[in-house]
Amino acid sequence: MNKADIHDILDGHKPLGGVNVARVMDVLILLSAIAIALETMPELPDHLRGLLFNFEVLLLVIFAAEYVLRLVTSPRPLRYAFSFWGLVDFLAFAPAMALLTPQWQVVRAFRLLRLVRLLKLFRGSHAMERLVVAFRQVRGELLIFGIIAALMLYVSAVGIYIFEHEAQPEVFSSIPNSLWWAVASFTTVGYGDMFPITAGGRIFTTFVLFIGLGVIAVPSAIITTALLESETNIQRRLREAREEAANEINNSAQDTKGD
Amino acid sequence: MNKADIHDILDGHKPLGGVNVARVMDVLILLSAIAIALETMPELPDHLRGLLFNFEVLLLVIFAAEYVLRLVTSPRPLRYAFSFWGLVDFLAFAPAMALLTPQWQVVRAFRLLRLVRLLKLFRGSHAMERLVVAFRQVRGELLIFGIIAALMLYVSAVGIYIFEHEAQPEVFSSIPNSLWWAVASFTTVGYGDMFPITAGGRIFTTFVLFIGLGVIAVPSAIITTALLESETNIQRRLREAREEAANEINNSAQDTKGD
Amino acid sequence: MNKADIHDILDGHKPLGGVNVARVMDVLILLSAIAIALETMPELPDHLRGLLFNFEVLLLVIFAAEYVLRLVTSPRPLRYAFSFWGLVDFLAFAPAMALLTPQWQVVRAFRLLRLVRLLKLFRGSHAMERLVVAFRQVRGELLIFGIIAALMLYVSAVGIYIFEHEAQPEVFSSIPNSLWWAVASFTTVGYGDMFPITAGGRIFTTFVLFIGLGVIAVPSAIITTALLESETNIQRRLREAREEAANEINNSAQDTKGD
Amino acid sequence: MNKADIHDILDGHKPLGGVNVARVMDVLILLSAIAIALETMPELPDHLRGLLFNFEVLLLVIFAAEYVLRLVTSPRPLRYAFSFWGLVDFLAFAPAMALLTPQWQVVRAFRLLRLVRLLKLFRGSHAMERLVVAFRQVRGELLIFGIIAALMLYVSAVGIYIFEHEAQPEVFSSIPNSLWWAVASFTTVGYGDMFPITAGGRIFTTFVLFIGLGVIAVPSAIITTALLESETNIQRRLREAREEAANEINNSAQDTKGD
Repeated sequence: MNKADIHDILDGHKPLGGVNVARVMDVLILLSAIAIALETMPELPDHLRGLLFNFEVLLLVIFAAEYVLRLVTSPRPLRYAFSFWGLVDFLAFAPAMALLTPQWQVVRAFRLLRLVRLLKLFRGSHAMERLVVAFRQVRGELLIFGIIAALMLYVSAVGIYIFEHEAQPEVFSSIPNSLWWAVASFTTVGYGDMFPITAGGRIFTTFVLFIGLGVIAVPSAIITTALLESETNIQRRLREAREEAANEINNSAQDTKGD
Repeated sequence: MNKADIHDILDGHKPLGGVNVARVMDVLILLSAIAIALETMPELPDHLRGLLFNFEVLLLVIFAAEYVLRLVTSPRPLRYAFSFWGLVDFLAFAPAMALLTPQWQVVRAFRLLRLVRLLKLFRGSHAMERLVVAFRQVRGELLIFGIIAALMLYVSAVGIYIFEHEAQPEVFSSIPNSLWWAVASFTTVGYGDMFPITAGGRIFTTFVLFIGLGVIAVPSAIITTALLESETNIQRRLREAREEAANEINNSAQDTKGD
Repeated sequence: MNKADIHDILDGHKPLGGVNVARVMDVLILLSAIAIALETMPELPDHLRGLLFNFEVLLLVIFAAEYVLRLVTSPRPLRYAFSFWGLVDFLAFAPAMALLTPQWQVVRAFRLLRLVRLLKLFRGSHAMERLVVAFRQVRGELLIFGIIAALMLYVSAVGIYIFEHEAQPEVFSSIPNSLWWAVASFTTVGYGDMFPITAGGRIFTTFVLFIGLGVIAVPSAIITTALLESETNIQRRLREAREEAANEINNSAQDTKGD
Repeated sequence: MNKADIHDILDGHKPLGGVNVARVMDVLILLSAIAIALETMPELPDHLRGLLFNFEVLLLVIFAAEYVLRLVTSPRPLRYAFSFWGLVDFLAFAPAMALLTPQWQVVRAFRLLRLVRLLKLFRGSHAMERLVVAFRQVRGELLIFGIIAALMLYVSAVGIYIFEHEAQPEVFSSIPNSLWWAVASFTTVGYGDMFPITAGGRIFTTFVLFIGLGVIAVPSAIITTALLESETNIQRRLREAREEAANEINNSAQDTKGD
């Protein structure tokens, strides 16, 4: 097995003895993400924590081995090492090395760097490309309506601050604080930590909510629409409608010709 | 009345003396579902509970009778017994038999199995077929955007955990716990049991909410769109538009021909 | 001024000395609705309450006068008296008569009957017709998806009851109670009075929310879509597109003819 | 540099030595908005507050200078002074003058008038025009559905008041108070400060929510749709489809001609 073959196997092009290596690595990345989440649970029993530690070490070895293999089998090792995916591959196992040092409790914060592994899931992914294309298509509109939405949030926050600050000085303590209320309200999440209690504040909220929901929904609606439209129903249907129309035109043209 | 007739009557093809038997069974299933719900109410007066018990026994007899009749009148009894709907029909009354044993309080948990009766409502239902067709059409897109939505939830949960864990160690106690916050926030339900209080957490939430709502809304939007489109307005209208266009083309073609 | 003229004036066809009587009555109905709302405020100062009482008496006289005028000027008084709008006109002032009796505090509940006045706002209203037409068009779909949504709510309520009843017996005390949680969650209102706290309940909620939001949003989406479409953008645009297409076809046909 | 040149520079037509003055002013307005927000934070350290005070004075000088320059270079100074933007320019710095008086704490409330500066951001803005055009296009529909939504809110508030007032006299204390519940529920924000607890109130809420969400979503949906459609996907796509259809018609016509 030569270098190029190993490289191809790591990229998922040639299943190794029926096992698609790239797919196995993806599963390991997801398992690693789950392990990172589980580790943070304080109620985790000690033996499970020990198991997770061992699993972490195993992943560390596998990801390090993958990095070394990729480095060795790459036609241009240095270029790979400093490429975007090369850095991601390195960061995927480097922070975990802290696990092996005696004072690893100190370098806990580094552990979360391992989340960059998740980025590897998108390597060569069609779905991610689609997401990026959709975002790029609506970038301009997103920026304009993003700014308008931000201004609307700001004006609403100032308004509610004026109405509610006196009645609830602890809750609506400042305009930046009121901005949080505006975000939670206009996204319709409504946590319930902040809400107007004065008649003025409630009437103001009613008005800005009904006008504002339509305006602030635009950035999210733009993203949803762009994603839904990227090679989905409407496009496909319009194409079909166009083709049918073209057929009918051809047919009628032939009828005309035929006479 | 022969076997085939009874079978047809149970399937609702031949109303019995003006009474559609299949429709009556559907109503009984719904009443049974309501009874299951009411039984769980601790504030229910004892005489109503007694009434519900008797009603349960009645339903038990009816559903058992239906099962036996179906079994007997089926051309292939064994095949029916082990078919999907045969098992549903059996499970619809089997757990209720526990009511008749003296220790039925012990086997309470089995009662909820009776909910499979609800599945019988969809037997031969056009609406359910439509739901299944709509889901199947968008299966691929649903999977891709489902994964993207899941990753977005995960990244948001990790982010909020980093920002809020120190300030609210009880609330944002772990990443799995923070995932619950992400689910409640991105679906815009916002129960209010968990919310960021630090400036960093709130700014992070604002950014991921505005970008994320658009992305996470996609799976739900795909389902809604697929359901709305299955033989509804847009399709019908496009067909009409196409027909009108075809007519106009024909007319113009005839005009051309006529000359 | 004869009977027919008075009748026409009341219906808003002939402005009386520049004053559109029907429009004035509409404003009075709205003012009456505001008065009903204000009256319920316990913090209302006594002099305002007195003012509202006098205003109520004035409205009573006006609405009674309108009723009598309509009765007298109607070509068929009895038919009007028992027609839908005749009954609404009667109920609009009849309950207010209780104000004049000494024990009017006793018949407080009747006061709310005056809200039927609001229905008069829709008399001959184009908007209301549109609403009714839109509802009628989607009646069938609304019923099917309404039932599916109801079943989904029921199944979710049973599921959350199984997961959460043991952990929160006070909150998720029964299935009907859990149904309330399902309604508040699937409409994404999320009051925060009930929410799952167990891992199982939260995972269950995550799954049913992501699938269910798409399904349960359908009835509301059907109404929104039907209303938006009743003589709005898409329809108008499709018509324009069709007309332009027809023009272009005619032009191209003429070109062909011209040769 | 003559008057007209200064005027042009202030309007952003002629970059001054590579610096676009109008753009710099926009940034200053945004910084001023941020400063207004930060000033209200009680936890702000004193030295930052001092810094903000100095920044405010600087902005005051700059905005005053801009106003004077605009006044002087305007072809008709008086007309500018009493025009809409002239007044905005004046109000942008006038209230800040209170900062310089010894008793400026007294005139705190005036400070918020400076927010009118934000309006200057939209001077000659294409995005704002689009917003205004979109609103104007749907003005009629917005009014009709706005009224219907308001009536629905009112009826829901009266309904919930009837169901809940007795059980929660403190929470649902009056109809205007219940209106606040209706606003928070129908926008699906659901703060959780008010929610029904009686069976009747919850069943009523379920029904009005499912019907009402569709109706009340219409005004916001109208705004969102209008904004999304103003020179976006659907329009562009329909135009393209039309052009392609026209091309195909031309081609087929030429084919016919060619024969």
